Amino acid sequence: MKCRCGRRAVYYRRFEGSALCKKCFLKSIEKKVKRTVRNNKLIRPGDRIAFALSGGKDSSAVLYLMHEIISPRRDMEMFAITIDEGISSYRPKTIKAAKKLCKELGIEHYVFSFKDFFGKTLDQKVKEIKNCEIKEPCTYCGVGRRYVLNLKARELGATKICTGHNLDDEVQSIIMNYIRGDILRAGRLGPVTDFSIRKKHGKMFIPRIKPLREIPEKEIALYIMLKNMDISWDECPYASGIRFDVRDFINNLEKKYPGTKYTILYAFDKIVPYIRKASVFKEGEILKCKKCGEPASGEVCKACELWKA
Amino acid sequence: MKCRCGRRAVYYRRFEGSALCKKCFLKSIEKKVKRTVRNNKLIRPGDRIAFALSGGKDSSAVLYLMHEIISPRRDMEMFAITIDEGISSYRPKTIKAAKKLCKELGIEHYVFSFKDFFGKTLDQKVKEIKNCEIKEPCTYCGVGRRYVLNLKARELGATKICTGHNLDDEVQSIIMNYIRGDILRAGRLGPVTDFSIRKKHGKMFIPRIKPLREIPEKEIALYIMLKNMDISWDECPYASGIRFDVRDFINNLEKKYPGTKYTILYAFDKIVPYIRKASVFKEGEILKCKKCGEPASGEVCKACELWKA
Repeated sequence: MKCRCGRRAVYYRRFEGSALCKKCFLKSIEKKVKRTVRNNKLIRPGDRIAFALSGGKDSSAVLYLMHEIISPRRDMEMFAITIDEGISSYRPKTIKAAKKLCKELGIEHYVFSFKDFFGKTLDQKVKEIKNCEIKEPCTYCGVGRRYVLNLKARELGATKICTGHNLDDEVQSIIMNYIRGDILRAGRLGPVTDFSIRKKHGKMFIPRIKPLREIPEKEIALYIMLKNMDISWDECPYASGIRFDVRDFINNLEKKYPGTKYTILYAFDKIVPYIRKASVFKEGEILKCKKCGEPASGEVCKACELWKA
Repeated sequence: MKCRCGRRAVYYRRFEGSALCKKCFLKSIEKKVKRTVRNNKLIRPGDRIAFALSGGKDSSAVLYLMHEIISPRRDMEMFAITIDEGISSYRPKTIKAAKKLCKELGIEHYVFSFKDFFGKTLDQKVKEIKNCEIKEPCTYCGVGRRYVLNLKARELGATKICTGHNLDDEVQSIIMNYIRGDILRAGRLGPVTDFSIRKKHGKMFIPRIKPLREIPEKEIALYIMLKNMDISWDECPYASGIRFDVRDFINNLEKKYPGTKYTILYAFDKIVPYIRKASVFKEGEILKCKKCGEPASGEVCKACELWKA
């Protein structure tokens, strides 16, 4: 197969029926990310952006791609934060990859651990929760990670947190919210955290941006490989839950009906402004956790509930 | 297993963790249907309701259950319409069952055929469309069926069309609309067709009601069996398409997480008012097909496009 430019194709993009050579493929990814950034006004002068960097493919790709955009500019800054949840068979390797990437790109890098924050590692927590109502490690891990990330990014002067969520992640989250009936959470999805959330939590909550939300997971993996980036390909040993049922379902649909992932994403983007107008988003009060003062959706934040009890 | 009343249970309702005897099960279905009818104001004095009756389990169940509610009342009427699409290996048997049920209940019954309306049966159409862009028989069948049903119900003086859509159908449609990005269509779902549709199409469009939308398919089947109703259990030979992928996915989720179907339904019901406020629903103009004068979403209605070209 040949690329439209005449060179040998390395990838066939089924949903648009086009074959791409290495050069055209890399360029198409960079162009699409720039378009997502521009169309959604993800960055602006004066920004200091904290990158949530695990050292895996998505967070490494977004750091690299955004570094290309941000580093030539004098009106914004970037730095990276890695959270060490304490998963002994998995995390040390990705932290090493994260450190190496930041050193290569000349980006300041911070590592914070669950052990320091909550007094225990995720490995220890997993042993404790066997008899709890909520058993999925991903729930504890996600709540803790977002908590530390928001708090530390804020302390380090971040105006935004940039994450590596890709098209697959985003579409899975959309379908999961539809399934769980979590319309409050659905209103939070999108290329940038809705401003109404920020109004709710004031300056305590750092808005999140997702420049890769229009790039399929597969294409991020290919980007990393073609760029010869030295990242960690390991998968978390605790990964489980409904997200994986949803992932398989969507991947099957995409195979039968190429383009389905984009259809779901853009349909959601059309609906979300209306969901955000739903009554739950109308209140202007700022919700703070009674125990720690961090943003909360109820009286006590999820991190205090799941990690500090 | 025992029912809470002490009798032997015939069914275990997993999502509520309750075992039910025959009597309590039948009563629970009848109560739930009455609640759906009442909470959504599905019927009102002066109504003359056309029942879309295929002779299969869902349409037979809704006719039977609603007959119990409507027949004692002097302020409303009901009749049944069966559409004969012309599926030789399947439809004759269900039409026979439909006729028998109407005779038993003393309900006036009409049968209209695709052959009379469009000059050909679905069997003939299926042979023609092999080289068309749209290949799924369900698309042609659904468009034709809804067209004839709406037109004939209106001619026969119906104020509403009642269909047998169950919880499974409704949840599949919700997820399919999310996936296809069809927000216009999503706004139409719900226990009763949104009034804005009616505004769009004027009195040409007969609103549809779905009293069984909160009853799982499995429970309708059990209701039919326990009532010893003589219906047709055959499945349409043409059934195919994305709906069946969605059905399997949702059934798997329901197995792992009992109650998922209700969660999806009620989450959607919370969102739908906001979807309906979307701009596509704001216009007040009445859309009519240029060819036949029936309700249309564009210049020409789908039936003229797919059946009369």
